[in-house]
Amino acid sequence: VTPAEGGPTADARAAGLRKLLLDEGLDALIATSEAGIAYLSGFHGLQLERLFAVVVRPEGGALVVPRLDEESARAAPTELERVVYDPTSDGLPALLGVLDGARRVGVEEAHLSFARARGLMDAGLELVAAGELTMRLRAPKDAEEVELITSACRLVEEALEEMFGRLRPGDVERVVNAEVEHHLRRAGATEVHPLILFGPNAARPHAEPGDRVLHPGDVVCADVSARLGGYWGDLTRCGTVGPASDWSRDAWGVVRDAQAAAIAAALAGAEARAVDAAQRRVIEAVPRLGSCLHGAGHAIGLEVHEPPFLVPASDARLAEGTVLTIEPGIYREGVGGIRLEDDVLVGEREPRVLSRLPLELREVPVEGTNA
Amino acid sequence: VTPAEGGPTADARAAGLRKLLLDEGLDALIATSEAGIAYLSGFHGLQLERLFAVVVRPEGGALVVPRLDEESARAAPTELERVVYDPTSDGLPALLGVLDGARRVGVEEAHLSFARARGLMDAGLELVAAGELTMRLRAPKDAEEVELITSACRLVEEALEEMFGRLRPGDVERVVNAEVEHHLRRAGATEVHPLILFGPNAARPHAEPGDRVLHPGDVVCADVSARLGGYWGDLTRCGTVGPASDWSRDAWGVVRDAQAAAIAAALAGAEARAVDAAQRRVIEAVPRLGSCLHGAGHAIGLEVHEPPFLVPASDARLAEGTVLTIEPGIYREGVGGIRLEDDVLVGEREPRVLSRLPLELREVPVEGTNA
Repeated sequence: VTPAEGGPTADARAAGLRKLLLDEGLDALIATSEAGIAYLSGFHGLQLERLFAVVVRPEGGALVVPRLDEESARAAPTELERVVYDPTSDGLPALLGVLDGARRVGVEEAHLSFARARGLMDAGLELVAAGELTMRLRAPKDAEEVELITSACRLVEEALEEMFGRLRPGDVERVVNAEVEHHLRRAGATEVHPLILFGPNAARPHAEPGDRVLHPGDVVCADVSARLGGYWGDLTRCGTVGPASDWSRDAWGVVRDAQAAAIAAALAGAEARAVDAAQRRVIEAVPRLGSCLHGAGHAIGLEVHEPPFLVPASDARLAEGTVLTIEPGIYREGVGGIRLEDDVLVGEREPRVLSRLPLELREVPVEGTNA
Repeated sequence: VTPAEGGPTADARAAGLRKLLLDEGLDALIATSEAGIAYLSGFHGLQLERLFAVVVRPEGGALVVPRLDEESARAAPTELERVVYDPTSDGLPALLGVLDGARRVGVEEAHLSFARARGLMDAGLELVAAGELTMRLRAPKDAEEVELITSACRLVEEALEEMFGRLRPGDVERVVNAEVEHHLRRAGATEVHPLILFGPNAARPHAEPGDRVLHPGDVVCADVSARLGGYWGDLTRCGTVGPASDWSRDAWGVVRDAQAAAIAAALAGAEARAVDAAQRRVIEAVPRLGSCLHGAGHAIGLEVHEPPFLVPASDARLAEGTVLTIEPGIYREGVGGIRLEDDVLVGEREPRVLSRLPLELREVPVEGTNA
C-alpha cells in the first residue's frame, strides 16, 4: 500500500489551502498536528515534545522540524521549504522566521498548545482558530484515500475473523487483545488499537482489557482499529460464548436497527447530529435493554477520530466523500455491551459501506479451549 | 503490579499541590494531561477528543469527565468531587463551574489546547503556565514509583534478551518489532513502543520499522519502552550480525564511555544540560565515527518522556529521586547507529542504575534463520 500523501498530492492540497487563506483573510496557516502535517506535506514525524509544523502562506511555506528529523523531512514529497532548528532551540524562533511579515495566522486550535500559542501571540501574531479550514479540505476523501481506508478495513476484518474463529472459553482478555495487535502489526499496520472486552467489562465502552477470563454466557465486544498506509479502519463486531441470551439477542437486534437508521441518514448535506439522532432514537426506545452511552460515530482518515463527530452537540454538516464510523451501542452495567461499527462513505444520493463483515452476532463455541 | 496512584497517595499529592498553589498565589490548578490527571486522582481515562480534567483548589477540587467515563471516574481512588458532563456539552461549562470564584489559574501549558485556553480566558480567567508546579511534585519518585519503574525495566530487559536470543539473518524489521510488542503485551504492558532498527535504518533514531531484512554485517539498534502498572521503563541495547566491524566496535566503545560520563553527572542539584554535556563531549570528540543527534535523555515515570529533558537548551536542575533515561548514541548515515540506554535514579551522593542488562554489544549468529 502506498501512502496517499505527498508529491503532487501534498502540493495540490497546500495549493487548495492557499485559496482558503485568501478567502478567510489569513496571512498564513500553521498545522501542528501529525495528521495536518502529513496531509499538507507527506511528512510523518515522531513528535513527542519537539515542535513540528507546516506553515502554508499565500506564496510558499515551510516544513519546520528539529535537526533529528532533518533527513526524513528532506525525503518528504513536498515542494515546501525545509526549515531545521537545532537542539539548543525550542523551534519557536524558526517558526516565527517562516511567519515573518504575517499578522493574522490560522492555527489548529484543538492541537496547538497554550505554551506555543502564547509564544506566537507574544511575538505579535493574531491567532485565529482555523482547524475547520484544514478539515474542510481533509473531510472529503479522494479515490486513493477511500482505497486506503478500505484496505485498512480489510485488514481489520481479517483480524476480527481470525480472532472470533480462535476464541474459546478460558482465553484471557489481555492476551486476546495482544494476539490481535500482533496479527495486525505483522501484517503491516503502523498503529493498532484493539479494544476487545469480555462480559461485564463490555458494559464500559472505554474499559481497559485486563485479566478477565472468557466464560460461557459472556458477550464479547471487539472494537479494533488499525492504520495501514497512513489511513485508519475501525470496526466492531460482537459475539456471545454459547447461544445468545435473550438480552444479547434483543440488544443485537436493536443495535443493528440503529446502525441501519444512522447509515441511511449519512448523506451529503445532512447534519452530523441528525445521524446521531437516528441511532439514538432506536436505542433509547428500549431503556430496559441498557443505555446509549455515546454518539453515532466520527469521521476517520489520517486520524482514527476526526471531526465531524456524530454527537448531539455538533452543528457540522456532512460533506460528500467524508468517511464515517457508524457505531451505535447499547450497554447494561453488570451484564455487557453490544456495539456494531462499520466505516461508511458519505454519498450525495446514498451512503456506501466500505467494510464488509457480515451483520451477525457471532457465536463462540462453548466446547474446547486454547489453553 | 499495583499502580502507585490513588487512595491516600493521590490525595496526599493533591494536598502537596495545594501548598504550592498558596506559594504561587494561584486560585486553582487545572491538570488536563493523562499523566497529570492520573498523578493527582488515580484516574486513567481514554481522552481522545473529550475534555478530562483534575481541578485542585486551595480547598477541595474535582475530577471532570464525560458521562461515558462516569463509572470509571467514580471508581478512582480519590476524595476529589466528581463532575460529569453530558454529550451535549464540550465540558467547558462543567470545568468553569468547578472554577467558580477563581481568577488566577495554573494550567499545564504544554498540554492544554489553544481552543480550551481561549474558552477559559474568555470566561475571565487569567491562565498561568504551571506545568512546572506539578512536575516539581512528580519529578522525585517515591519508593513505590521507583519499584514500578524498576518492574517495567525488568520486563523490557526480558523482552530484549528474548529478542536478541532469537534474532537471525532473514528476519524482517517490522515483524521483529511486532514480536517484541506482542511479548510485552502478553506480559501485561498497557503501552509499548518498540523501535528496533536494522543496518542503515538505525542511522536515523526516529526511523519507522519497515520491510528491511536483517543481513550479516548489519547493526541492530533495539530501543524498547513499555508501561506496566502505570509506569514506564525504556532501554536500548545494540548488536551486530556476525562479528562487530571496526566502526561498530569503536562506536560502541565511545557510546559506553559517553553513558558512563553522563551517569556520573546525574546528581541531585546538577544541571540537566551538564548531563548532556558530559555525553556530548565524548561523542563529539570522534566525529569520524558519526554524529551526536540528540540529547542525553529525559525523565521517565507516568510518561515515557517527562521533563526535565537532558538537552543543551535546558536550564533545569535535577531533583533527587528523579528517574532519567541516559541514552547517548552515535549515528553514521548509510551505516547505522549505536545507542546505549539505561534508566537511572538521581541520588544525592551517587546515581543508581535501575536497569541491569549487561553492558555489551550483542553478537547475533550469522548461521541459521527463523524462516
